[in-house]
Amino acid sequence: MTPNGKTRLVVIAGYPTGHIKGFSEYEQAIAARGANALYISMQVAPANFASFLEGIRHVETLAGLVLTIPHKVAGFQAATSHDGTARLSGAANLLRPTQDGWHASNVDGPGFLDAARTAGIGFAGQAVQVLGAGGAGRAVAMTIAAEKPAALALHDTDAARAQALAADVCAAFPGILCRATLGSSTVLVNCTPAGMGHDQSLPCDAALVPEAGAVFDIVNRVDTPLIELAKARGCRTEYGYAMMMAEVPLILDWLLGA
Amino acid sequence: MTPNGKTRLVVIAGYPTGHIKGFSEYEQAIAARGANALYISMQVAPANFASFLEGIRHVETLAGLVLTIPHKVAGFQAATSHDGTARLSGAANLLRPTQDGWHASNVDGPGFLDAARTAGIGFAGQAVQVLGAGGAGRAVAMTIAAEKPAALALHDTDAARAQALAADVCAAFPGILCRATLGSSTVLVNCTPAGMGHDQSLPCDAALVPEAGAVFDIVNRVDTPLIELAKARGCRTEYGYAMMMAEVPLILDWLLGA
Repeated sequence: MTPNGKTRLVVIAGYPTGHIKGFSEYEQAIAARGANALYISMQVAPANFASFLEGIRHVETLAGLVLTIPHKVAGFQAATSHDGTARLSGAANLLRPTQDGWHASNVDGPGFLDAARTAGIGFAGQAVQVLGAGGAGRAVAMTIAAEKPAALALHDTDAARAQALAADVCAAFPGILCRATLGSSTVLVNCTPAGMGHDQSLPCDAALVPEAGAVFDIVNRVDTPLIELAKARGCRTEYGYAMMMAEVPLILDWLLGA
Repeated sequence: MTPNGKTRLVVIAGYPTGHIKGFSEYEQAIAARGANALYISMQVAPANFASFLEGIRHVETLAGLVLTIPHKVAGFQAATSHDGTARLSGAANLLRPTQDGWHASNVDGPGFLDAARTAGIGFAGQAVQVLGAGGAGRAVAMTIAAEKPAALALHDTDAARAQALAADVCAAFPGILCRATLGSSTVLVNCTPAGMGHDQSLPCDAALVPEAGAVFDIVNRVDTPLIELAKARGCRTEYGYAMMMAEVPLILDWLLGA
């Protein structure tokens, strides 16, 4: 769509942004609503993110921001108000400008769960391993916790980050068996950037990818090394594209109005 | 064009922005270059403009800003470096992010002169009246001054603004007959917002529109009341569209690289 002077901007902010996909899908979803809006990306380094937020807030034609790696936790912390999904995860993937700051939300959890269900991947009674305790990992872990897994193991290369998330999960879901650890599982979920773009690394040791279990890789790439290995081992799989597509209507509702 | 994560943004910033035209023309010119860039608008109130500049500067995928009413003088003042056209006029219609701030330029003058020449409107030896001493008026007045008019009269509803511009013109072009006044002319140039959008006002008293002279209305609308009246009086006329089209290649060269 050719924009005009009244076009509202839906901006995905990340660092880097070159790998980001989904522009055509957003464009089509916006057109289907008949909205005068445009989905564009802005690459902003973490050190400049706070200053960026303060400035971009004054764009009256801005509908809001979609936050991706590595801005989800910083976005949560910079927001002046939060809805329940953002508060629970301590991360934001959506920011809407308000009179005096930003209102935060997070639809990563609902989008992930919707995609997992559609793919036939369940968490109740399962031994679930989540890799990555960044912004997306936080939302995904909280969402899985609510599904009553037998056990929930969290891991991050930054051990303190995994421990903090495990503590938050245990506080939010009393009685859950949740620990910062790395081990075998029946359901493995990758929330690290491993496999993004052309990256050929696995997010964990190959021995930890389950046999005939389930693997959800939230990276938006059909053939990450993890997904390829999981398929070879007979796992049910799903990846980031399905999660993104589940989030598109939620995001456009929240930023443009339902 | 559907953008992607590497699309460079060419942002026109104004207040308001709803009336801005030219999006299709920019889109076509960008496509003709084969550039991965998008021309979009951002509405920013004058009180928030400095904060906006500080924040948007950190968008690494930003090619730069095109400034329109009312940000041209504020943009000049906020810039950390200026080229000759910006320095001469004390106004900027282009800002490019640098390591530590903004580099300013102004192609309103060259664009205006190119469009006037193509329309057969000359200034040498003419009694020229310029209405409006804002950012665009400053660039236009300096450009006309360089063309050796017989006299150059400047007017603004803010009298101090017209007087300051007249003083700047006299300083830059010693010997020129330039005054802050309003009277009859052979060539009339409108640089005020009168006639923008659906506005039906004239920028001056109807009696001051020349008979069989020339009128250039830089408002980008083919049928402003001024243009209609000038045509009825047998004037040669040109308007903002031609100026914009003359500026498009200059702007894209400067922001995206020639």
